[in-house]
Amino acid sequence: MENKVLIFGHRNPDTDTICSSIVATKLADYLGYDAEAVRLGKLNKETEYVFKYLGIEPQREISTVEEGQKIILVDHNEASQSVEGREGAEIIAVIDHHRIADFATTSPLYYIAKPYGCTATVLFELYKQHNVEIDKETAMLMLSAIISDTLLLKSPTCTEKDALALKQLEKIAKIDANKYGIDMLKAGTDISSFTAKEVIDMDAKLFSEKGKKFVVAQVNTADIDDVFSRKEDISFAMEKEIADKELDFFLFVITDIVNTNSKVIALGEDKDIIENAFKKELDEEDSMLLEGVVSRKKQIVPPILDNL
Amino acid sequence: MENKVLIFGHRNPDTDTICSSIVATKLADYLGYDAEAVRLGKLNKETEYVFKYLGIEPQREISTVEEGQKIILVDHNEASQSVEGREGAEIIAVIDHHRIADFATTSPLYYIAKPYGCTATVLFELYKQHNVEIDKETAMLMLSAIISDTLLLKSPTCTEKDALALKQLEKIAKIDANKYGIDMLKAGTDISSFTAKEVIDMDAKLFSEKGKKFVVAQVNTADIDDVFSRKEDISFAMEKEIADKELDFFLFVITDIVNTNSKVIALGEDKDIIENAFKKELDEEDSMLLEGVVSRKKQIVPPILDNL
Repeated sequence: MENKVLIFGHRNPDTDTICSSIVATKLADYLGYDAEAVRLGKLNKETEYVFKYLGIEPQREISTVEEGQKIILVDHNEASQSVEGREGAEIIAVIDHHRIADFATTSPLYYIAKPYGCTATVLFELYKQHNVEIDKETAMLMLSAIISDTLLLKSPTCTEKDALALKQLEKIAKIDANKYGIDMLKAGTDISSFTAKEVIDMDAKLFSEKGKKFVVAQVNTADIDDVFSRKEDISFAMEKEIADKELDFFLFVITDIVNTNSKVIALGEDKDIIENAFKKELDEEDSMLLEGVVSRKKQIVPPILDNL
Repeated sequence: MENKVLIFGHRNPDTDTICSSIVATKLADYLGYDAEAVRLGKLNKETEYVFKYLGIEPQREISTVEEGQKIILVDHNEASQSVEGREGAEIIAVIDHHRIADFATTSPLYYIAKPYGCTATVLFELYKQHNVEIDKETAMLMLSAIISDTLLLKSPTCTEKDALALKQLEKIAKIDANKYGIDMLKAGTDISSFTAKEVIDMDAKLFSEKGKKFVVAQVNTADIDDVFSRKEDISFAMEKEIADKELDFFLFVITDIVNTNSKVIALGEDKDIIENAFKKELDEEDSMLLEGVVSRKKQIVPPILDNL
């Protein structure tokens, strides 16, 4: 077992999960914990852009934790999105902005969740509360996470608090958040070098709810047609995932971050759940366009859960 | 459905649950919610003492909530300890100091839990963070809750933060917390006017864990023998509860708040779980003395859960 408290976000890490785990570690250190930020997977292209911009190296990757390991979770709480071996670990804190599900402890803990657009905004407030100085690098990490999760404040998950935090962080970081943000988001949409399997794994979340097991994977793009041109390979990779993980359905969401629409591909035995959730039929390509839909958490997962 | 946000603590309300629901309502009002403190049961004698001292009336009692009702939970999260109909309600916030179990939502929410001795201490920090003035009555409600949950800072659940809050609240309330606290705790131990059924219901928590259903009820006293003299009636009431609720076992804990010990009575098919949990045999009266044990949350429930 490692002596340090390990701090990490969800599997298939995105920019919020990676940046918030580092930001949380700085705060934990300040509060007297001996903490280390780790990650449960490879950095995506968007996060790589952030790290390259800041000239810093990604934290160490882990896949399991040992019995009794002290851990702090950021940006997730559900077991299926977390580290292997978590049931034997001691969760001392959770800092999150998601619904709570499939999460239980035997002891009291710190659990700070707020219905904001981004975990980094919750952390921004914690820094303020504890009067911890936000240095330039920390500000850039928080700012990148907020831009990523809120699509530059355009996502319906974005709250006043996210916008307020971004405004203050922009000043500390002395940067044009809009310009930096567009470059960062665009860097994240370049999937040309990825295989179809990598594309569907990139930001995939596995759910087990009401006896149904399913994945909702999302990819951001500046050009939906560009991604959709690879539909055949993507569908093949999805079908394989459905067979391997015994999924009831797999929803792949291609989100146009410029025009804020999404085109989805739904496969699997229970793909009619998607038709019921969005009150729209899948076309002959198992696809449908969802106008104005960009948020998995706020616009995609809730109607699915209501129609299981 | 009621338009106001309803704020309440657990069933079989204790002083922390009752006082924290009122304190949380004042904070919620300040933050722009239209909130009302309610309760899920009758006040105990200790809380009655607090209300009489302050010259205030207890909040309205409810037992169920309607579909879509907005609610805020304090001092609990587990479904079995909460309001009837909760599954259809919208939980907008939880402020707590317990482990998390049997709790799930479909949307993000505010969840502020800290491993402190008392919910009121979590609320004390929230008041500070939001720069909300703590008036004299609010200070007395917080102080009463802290004294109750930490047995005047003597319980092992008590943290530095509870002690720090109590010290500051004592100044605001301009009161001798020790003198007031002993009187308050003693008022809570007078069970002479209660039937055995009322005594075991007074502060009973129902658990459903790993296929086992059980109750851990607790009563505070300044004289264990005095309570134990009613053992026959208490056992009879416990047996009835076991039959009615199909419990695997029922643990009744008589806690001496002066000498900080507990004598327990264990009944039911699986009462050997108690023997395993505390590595001690029940005597011919189905009883055992637990030296230095006063906290259900920290010293009683965890070893039981580990031995289910």
